[in-house]
Amino acid sequence: MRYVYLDHAAATPVRAEVLEAMLPYFSQEFANPSAVYDLGSRVKEVLEEQRQKLARLIGAAAEEIIFTSSGAEANNLAVKGAVLAQQRKGKHLVVSAIEHHSVLNSARFLERFLDCEVTFLPVDASGLADPDRLRQALRDETVLVSIMHANNEIGTVQPLAELAAVCHEKGVLFHTDAVATVGNLPVDVRELGVDLLTLSGAALGAPKGTGALYFRNRLRLVPLIHGGIQEDGRRGGTENVPGIVGLGKAAELARAELPQRARHLARLRDLLVRGIKERVPRVVYTGHPEQRLPGHASFCIEAVEGEALLFMLSREGIYASTGSSCASKALKTSPVLVAIGIPPALAQGSLVFTMNNDNREEDVHCLLEKLPGAVAKLRAFSPVWKKIMDEEKKDETLHPEPVRHPAHAGHGPAL
Amino acid sequence: MRYVYLDHAAATPVRAEVLEAMLPYFSQEFANPSAVYDLGSRVKEVLEEQRQKLARLIGAAAEEIIFTSSGAEANNLAVKGAVLAQQRKGKHLVVSAIEHHSVLNSARFLERFLDCEVTFLPVDASGLADPDRLRQALRDETVLVSIMHANNEIGTVQPLAELAAVCHEKGVLFHTDAVATVGNLPVDVRELGVDLLTLSGAALGAPKGTGALYFRNRLRLVPLIHGGIQEDGRRGGTENVPGIVGLGKAAELARAELPQRARHLARLRDLLVRGIKERVPRVVYTGHPEQRLPGHASFCIEAVEGEALLFMLSREGIYASTGSSCASKALKTSPVLVAIGIPPALAQGSLVFTMNNDNREEDVHCLLEKLPGAVAKLRAFSPVWKKIMDEEKKDETLHPEPVRHPAHAGHGPAL
Repeated sequence: MRYVYLDHAAATPVRAEVLEAMLPYFSQEFANPSAVYDLGSRVKEVLEEQRQKLARLIGAAAEEIIFTSSGAEANNLAVKGAVLAQQRKGKHLVVSAIEHHSVLNSARFLERFLDCEVTFLPVDASGLADPDRLRQALRDETVLVSIMHANNEIGTVQPLAELAAVCHEKGVLFHTDAVATVGNLPVDVRELGVDLLTLSGAALGAPKGTGALYFRNRLRLVPLIHGGIQEDGRRGGTENVPGIVGLGKAAELARAELPQRARHLARLRDLLVRGIKERVPRVVYTGHPEQRLPGHASFCIEAVEGEALLFMLSREGIYASTGSSCASKALKTSPVLVAIGIPPALAQGSLVFTMNNDNREEDVHCLLEKLPGAVAKLRAFSPVWKKIMDEEKKDETLHPEPVRHPAHAGHGPAL
Repeated sequence: MRYVYLDHAAATPVRAEVLEAMLPYFSQEFANPSAVYDLGSRVKEVLEEQRQKLARLIGAAAEEIIFTSSGAEANNLAVKGAVLAQQRKGKHLVVSAIEHHSVLNSARFLERFLDCEVTFLPVDASGLADPDRLRQALRDETVLVSIMHANNEIGTVQPLAELAAVCHEKGVLFHTDAVATVGNLPVDVRELGVDLLTLSGAALGAPKGTGALYFRNRLRLVPLIHGGIQEDGRRGGTENVPGIVGLGKAAELARAELPQRARHLARLRDLLVRGIKERVPRVVYTGHPEQRLPGHASFCIEAVEGEALLFMLSREGIYASTGSSCASKALKTSPVLVAIGIPPALAQGSLVFTMNNDNREEDVHCLLEKLPGAVAKLRAFSPVWKKIMDEEKKDETLHPEPVRHPAHAGHGPAL
């Protein structure tokens, strides 16, 4: 069965070129890169080439890259490592309310075990963090601000350069989780002015178990994984050589393909959004309408349970998400949707589509063909939907024009 | 050129069966195991099968295994995670003086940032930790003891069950870094009585970037990598699915081959040790003569610089180590050799051979053929060697029998 996979934020296949590049490093070029003999130094050189490739993708220098085992590890290293390294300066940090769990829970760890204080910066109804509100949140003892580049649940892209500038006015370090943007949008650490940046290999078509942290030259970090001399003493453990080779190759490909990719993804997204708008009534488009990821479309569908809808779609061979897959099984209501003011009942109907370069227009057409029927089927059994329809009929008697449901006010355009 | 690789503790090739098992999980079965649809739950099931395989190798239950990105990460999680989880009980921990850097530096991190106190337990001249000395080191506020199962630099295997029993008398948790033993010796967590056990995938013929921590059922751990619901909330970040599949396969193979492997490795080691004893004068065998890893032989060669010797051997296609590869470039004198009382000058001549199942008798013969000449060549230029020879001549005039060099007294048999 051919399937339509629209959940690339959760996982994406390793690219054929990437796997091919990795293969020699499992059983042939297997030596430890720290070994002093030629077999080892050859592997060490290959590692450094990958560091260079990754650095080039984000406008950094090779020595500013630390390889990690995931975006989550890079987020932990950035938040904990940068705060601990500055504990004499202060113990206050600011993170946005819609960060990934790896940032939020790192901040909570610092609060619980290291006497730090955390300010959770709110975002507006479209998911944007406000530079002025950030300025007000900074204190003399603030040492780090962490705000993600784009959110995977609602697609909103933050005004990162502005936010970073606010931090630098006050000499505060700025970290961004750029897992969702690197490879999808141009990301240049100097232009953005970020001090620390997280990326994930898996999001780029490299294998799971790869990631990296950019840290501005000579910035001090307390290691998260203590060990030997690997990664210049910043991360212990033998380097995942095949994974890093895959990450380097994926970075090289991403850099070459970026302009074409961003255009392709934006076109597919616009087709998808317009199609759903035309075919499914009572849908709220979440996140910012313009400042958003190109291959990302997110909705809340009224009077529908998101997981039930996913299940129906998956039986048609269509795969999507209700939000962050790290949390989807654990939480009933998405904290991101709560943060942008979506009422809990509506948040249950969350549906997120994330595309990559392999997706084609026919994938979108296939979705648009199956989705309306699936929604209608679920709504046919929904008492909530019956109530809405009854109210609509009443309204129609009073007003000739359809009205927006009060719950949606301010949460992006009701489609 | 055919080469003789005798540095399997530093890195070992991924086994063909392991790589084959992994391949489908890069680009075909690529879904996120946390995804709610069938593609994801299929991968989740595969993960749980691997957990079962790994648990079986060490006599644990599947739910007692946390997958990590390396042995170093597992050591960090064990030491930091177990101490932080018990901070209300106390803040004292004991680690042996010859632990891996990932344990030593995790302990120092707790000391520096979390007001913990660390006792570094000495070992005797053969590298053994003494249960009575351990008992004396325990306090009311001791919450964790970490002593490695076997040391990769000197091969000594600790009396783990006895050490664990001492801890349990006092209700103290016992962690062991078993990276060097799992797959080489029988390791059963219940028989050993350990509460936490670290293993590395790379050491088993799985790829770099894989490892695991065993933790006794329901034991509390503060995560090292905070994130979502992965690994039951104990380790954030999308699971390295292909790596974990490789680790599972490697564990399955290791379990099946263990008895044959241990015999094969012990035979090769004995051949190697005997051969060096016969062919190279003034060599000190380090570590315990009997309680040691089967595929492991370690020496200090008088009046020779270990790295120079490694270089000469590598030019003959023979690869070995001078000690821990994580530290070999950073440190001039091995802390492990210092801890067993080897004088710094002698420690410079450290040479470590670690074998695996692929090594054959002819590898040992090849080494024994090349090593004496390489040692002699280096000694020919050594003023230290000249002095030793002059003294020996003087001694021969006084005593008809050769005497042991005072520096060696008590450091294992001078060969």
